[in-house]
Amino acid sequence: MVKGCTGFALAEALLRPRSVALVGVSDDIAKTAARPLRFLRRAGYGGEVYSVNPTRATVQGEPAFASLSALPERPDHAFILTGTDAAIAALEECGRLGVPVATILAGGFSEAGGAGVERERRLAEIGRSYGVRVLGPSSIGVVNVHERLVLTANAAFAEPDLPEGGVFVASHSGSLIGALLSRGKARGVGFAGLVSVGGEVDLSVGEICEATLDDPKIGGYLLFLESMRNADALRRFALAAAARGKPVAAYKLGRSAEAAELAVSHTGALAGEDDVADTFLRDCGIARVESFDGLLEVMPLLNRMPPRMRSKTGRQPAVGVVTTTGGGAAMAIDQLAIRGVRVAAPSAETVRRLAEAGIAAGEGRLVDLTLAGTRYDVMKAALGVMQTAPEFDLVLATVGSSARFQPDLAVAPVIDSAREHDKPLAAFIVPEAPEALLRLNAAGVPCFRAPESCGDVIAAALNRRAPRPELATPSPSPHPGAGRTIDEAEAYRLFARVGVPHAPVAVLTVGEPVPELPFAYPVVAKVLHPDIAHKTDLGGVVLNIADADALSAAMAAIRGRVEAARPEVGVRNILVQPMTRGVGEVLVGLRRDPQVGPVVMLAAGGVLTEIFRDRALRLAPVDRDTALEMIGEVKALQALAGYRGRTEGDLGAVADALVAVSRLALLDDVTVLEAEINPLMVMADGQGALAVDALVQLATADATAQSQENDTENRSGRNR
Amino acid sequence: MVKGCTGFALAEALLRPRSVALVGVSDDIAKTAARPLRFLRRAGYGGEVYSVNPTRATVQGEPAFASLSALPERPDHAFILTGTDAAIAALEECGRLGVPVATILAGGFSEAGGAGVERERRLAEIGRSYGVRVLGPSSIGVVNVHERLVLTANAAFAEPDLPEGGVFVASHSGSLIGALLSRGKARGVGFAGLVSVGGEVDLSVGEICEATLDDPKIGGYLLFLESMRNADALRRFALAAAARGKPVAAYKLGRSAEAAELAVSHTGALAGEDDVADTFLRDCGIARVESFDGLLEVMPLLNRMPPRMRSKTGRQPAVGVVTTTGGGAAMAIDQLAIRGVRVAAPSAETVRRLAEAGIAAGEGRLVDLTLAGTRYDVMKAALGVMQTAPEFDLVLATVGSSARFQPDLAVAPVIDSAREHDKPLAAFIVPEAPEALLRLNAAGVPCFRAPESCGDVIAAALNRRAPRPELATPSPSPHPGAGRTIDEAEAYRLFARVGVPHAPVAVLTVGEPVPELPFAYPVVAKVLHPDIAHKTDLGGVVLNIADADALSAAMAAIRGRVEAARPEVGVRNILVQPMTRGVGEVLVGLRRDPQVGPVVMLAAGGVLTEIFRDRALRLAPVDRDTALEMIGEVKALQALAGYRGRTEGDLGAVADALVAVSRLALLDDVTVLEAEINPLMVMADGQGALAVDALVQLATADATAQSQENDTENRSGRNR
Repeated sequence: MVKGCTGFALAEALLRPRSVALVGVSDDIAKTAARPLRFLRRAGYGGEVYSVNPTRATVQGEPAFASLSALPERPDHAFILTGTDAAIAALEECGRLGVPVATILAGGFSEAGGAGVERERRLAEIGRSYGVRVLGPSSIGVVNVHERLVLTANAAFAEPDLPEGGVFVASHSGSLIGALLSRGKARGVGFAGLVSVGGEVDLSVGEICEATLDDPKIGGYLLFLESMRNADALRRFALAAAARGKPVAAYKLGRSAEAAELAVSHTGALAGEDDVADTFLRDCGIARVESFDGLLEVMPLLNRMPPRMRSKTGRQPAVGVVTTTGGGAAMAIDQLAIRGVRVAAPSAETVRRLAEAGIAAGEGRLVDLTLAGTRYDVMKAALGVMQTAPEFDLVLATVGSSARFQPDLAVAPVIDSAREHDKPLAAFIVPEAPEALLRLNAAGVPCFRAPESCGDVIAAALNRRAPRPELATPSPSPHPGAGRTIDEAEAYRLFARVGVPHAPVAVLTVGEPVPELPFAYPVVAKVLHPDIAHKTDLGGVVLNIADADALSAAMAAIRGRVEAARPEVGVRNILVQPMTRGVGEVLVGLRRDPQVGPVVMLAAGGVLTEIFRDRALRLAPVDRDTALEMIGEVKALQALAGYRGRTEGDLGAVADALVAVSRLALLDDVTVLEAEINPLMVMADGQGALAVDALVQLATADATAQSQENDTENRSGRNR
Repeated sequence: MVKGCTGFALAEALLRPRSVALVGVSDDIAKTAARPLRFLRRAGYGGEVYSVNPTRATVQGEPAFASLSALPERPDHAFILTGTDAAIAALEECGRLGVPVATILAGGFSEAGGAGVERERRLAEIGRSYGVRVLGPSSIGVVNVHERLVLTANAAFAEPDLPEGGVFVASHSGSLIGALLSRGKARGVGFAGLVSVGGEVDLSVGEICEATLDDPKIGGYLLFLESMRNADALRRFALAAAARGKPVAAYKLGRSAEAAELAVSHTGALAGEDDVADTFLRDCGIARVESFDGLLEVMPLLNRMPPRMRSKTGRQPAVGVVTTTGGGAAMAIDQLAIRGVRVAAPSAETVRRLAEAGIAAGEGRLVDLTLAGTRYDVMKAALGVMQTAPEFDLVLATVGSSARFQPDLAVAPVIDSAREHDKPLAAFIVPEAPEALLRLNAAGVPCFRAPESCGDVIAAALNRRAPRPELATPSPSPHPGAGRTIDEAEAYRLFARVGVPHAPVAVLTVGEPVPELPFAYPVVAKVLHPDIAHKTDLGGVVLNIADADALSAAMAAIRGRVEAARPEVGVRNILVQPMTRGVGEVLVGLRRDPQVGPVVMLAAGGVLTEIFRDRALRLAPVDRDTALEMIGEVKALQALAGYRGRTEGDLGAVADALVAVSRLALLDDVTVLEAEINPLMVMADGQGALAVDALVQLATADATAQSQENDTENRSGRNR
């Protein structure tokens, strides 16, 4: 094992190599494998470029070398353009020669299944054993625009005049870096670099971006994600980027994917893959945009707008809108409002100041300048008043047909006003007016060509939060494989360790006389067995038991039913609790996601919650403020917050339980794979909340340890 | 009163006038009122143009007339460009002279409130009394591109070379016709005409469009709607357009508007304004797009794709996707899937046919041709196989960077394949490639510049249905003003008339001995009074009454509580029903919307339904197939369709009840403003459904009649 380069050294070899080798470069310019040489030459890359081709003395008119070993120096970066099997051999040669970074174009690895998985394992092994860092497989290459390093086989880079700027793109999809380049060029978005990360056998989006964080030419990051693999590195990068004030935005595929129903609990079924990804991105301070246009439009706004702190006052941020065209502004306001962004009317004081400037603001939420707004001084004055009005967090200028016919005049007041005031100012251009958009982008003013991306980007920017500090540790542990369910009594003890109150518990033995209980009748009796997760389905629960005789009968009946349904399970113990009534119920769960690590969930419970997928998710652990935020996000919990005169539930106790459950992720001695309280009974306000059912799955090794330990405890009586 | 022109004559005067008068046209070309003359001259309009200006002998170098009366002929169309008060006078002059159509630019009418409302009433009166048809007020004018009639003050029409084509635009917003023009021009969308309808004091979107339906140069209609005013005319137009096979698409503002909480029933609160609009558009066969790009992209697809018939087989339509770029196609598939569009994998037979053509389709939903797809023959062959595969209703071609560099080559197979096969074919162009989009549009091939509008348009086209024939009659009656609630017993009788079964009913008198009931105990007792809609809130309901003594006591208690809470209400009668249990409950309601007419609603009932706004709406009446469709749309009703092993409810009986309630809208002798069954108790499958509460509001005049009639009926016993 040789340690490969990381951090600054990695960024140098990957993106600022002094020399590159093109392994398998083609002489036939119709071929994909011919492109990188053409592109590097056309771009005027200043470093050494070595063509490696075992069958030709020259390639595209340049001398070629028969092998990497034949080169006069060790290149910093090898781009391997060969087929699958030859790529493995070439990587091994890179390893032997000490090439720091190799990028592999070929596919046919794990995505091909079968032998491909073995081939990918081999790539990883070569990388690790020689210390060569691998980009790909299936990487279409890397581009450093400032260095003219167009080390890619993506046809989109054939054009001259690559747009230069501060945006760094990392993408799971190779073709998309081309689409972003051409669309960015048309809009005046300039790039520092673009990397196609491919299959991430070694280098991931997170590690690559993190390695570039000190590059002063990079102002922000755009990520195009197909999945959340290597989320750990992505999280480290996001936290480091936030610390440096460099914004990160992401477009993630898979919003439509069916939820992975892999887990034993409701938490698993309710926390779909994309919801977990959404939670991860938000908690890491990454702004997620939902539109492809938005990905190219979001960076200027993020640059001008630091992530919001979580507000204790609860004032929702507000947008003020100034327009020359009522219809255009109405479209933008509609798109903001359907995304939950508040569009506010100017205050009386602001209306007064607008009037002083000769502007009649009218009645509604909109400051509609009509035709007068095409005059520089009128629009400039209106924007100045709005940008200095305390009620707005962001001002949106909507510009009509003047943006098409007199782009300079139409956007000048917006550009000047954005320069003069700190408050973020953005512009939506209603007609087809590419020139106006180019001017705004050149001035760094956030601007939108469609009402939908306007709403999308502003919502993403206003919703962006600084990453929660508690996420810096622990690093999420990977899924440790199989798990084992513990029984309900053990689960209560685990919950009690982190401070979740539960209904009193007695564990009785079937067939033995019923002892005096430490709580009053009526009671509920439940089969107690680690292998039985869904007790009710098997007839393993009897409610409303009035006295000891009835309890004795119920216990026998439970054993009979459960053993009939599951003959392999021997029923020995029954868990008894007092009947508990609250004003409502919630479901609180923790799940260790195999990709992003522990996630805590709150839902209202019940069949409708599942149907509506109405729940709040966060990376664990959470603090109390975050828990209260989660409560606010679950729509059905309005019913516990005094909706239509209903009794209020103790939502503070729900928040405490959420915090406690989220801290199960931090336990050192056990690894909780899943934990679920369903339901947590919510009492009237001030009277707390009690777990009345509990399901916990531990990583297998831990489960064994825990189970042995519990055997020595008193198995009856109250836990607290 | 003089009847103004309608239909063909209206379209002639409005859009093909032989002569126009510009009343108040300005000589100062910086002024808005100067534009129409400039635009008409630049465009080369062939008819007579008369400038009317009382203070100048010439305007913009042309002779001007002092008044309309001074013109040498009666113009077909007067465009009144003056201020508000002068516009009223000018309209009256138009009336006196017999000018068939006048368009009014000025604002300051009803939208200004107060005296403006009176001014608008005056406009309407002038129009009606002289028979002059009025476009506006606040209309920025009309454009007939084919006739070079650029009769507008919208600055966007200053440019030469207006794009000519088959699309007719009618818009509530005047500025938006300019934005559509410029954006359409950039995309190769050509227009037949564009009309800014303004305040619709007389001519509405619906009437104008209907008048143009026989114009062979118009292929389809794009509507930009701010509200659903004059929905009756819009409905007539939509049905007539459907009959002629001319597609209609709409973008409607107000998706975010808070629901109007004007109604007494839940139906009112649950059926928000925009939901009602959505229902109206869908039921009228108008394709609603949600994105502004989509509005300009939707027409070619609607032209190639007749509205779907309602399918009895339930097969969901499917889209097949062919691509040269996996990442781009994945974005499009994601956007289709989140809108509920099914993207299907090719069948085994299709995979075989692709293989015969030398194409390896791979495993997934996507036919990814990779680089080979940039070859004409490969893409053409793949599209040919997919377009003739029976499993697809539409084929989407996703084209990567070749669309930018070789637009002709890249889109040629798409254009040729679209020409050769009937099945709709559309294209999503991933890079910035305006030339490729222009070529596709010129060939009439539906094409999209963003994955979001691709998903939006395809979903809108696949969801478009032919208008239901039962909507042709009756024409929705306008809201007849105030209403009056009838009591629950009367409401049951009304429901029984249309065939909704209800739980047996007895009406008893408080203070009198309890008679023998026509049904068994236990029973429920409810206060019976037309003025008490929400009985439970006042303590007006007692459940689970075991015998006659308890019933007598309950009746007295109800009277006590209700009269204490509402001293003005004298409680005399109590309605008694047997306790009824079902496997679930639903809410069925009818509401006469003041704009679109009677709407029928189905919801699951309960507080969560309100919070999640989970309901299905249709214009009334509905047939049974439509009712079954509605049941499928209410998510919470999955719980009654065997979700997770629950007992199935009699959803057929729910459908029958929906049909019946919807037919309340057709009653001749009463005008039902609102009717609601909450709940309709749903029994196990095969055992029916029963109304167990009922609330009905009739138009005031009817309510009185109905009430008197009921006094002569037997007030006790079962209705069926």
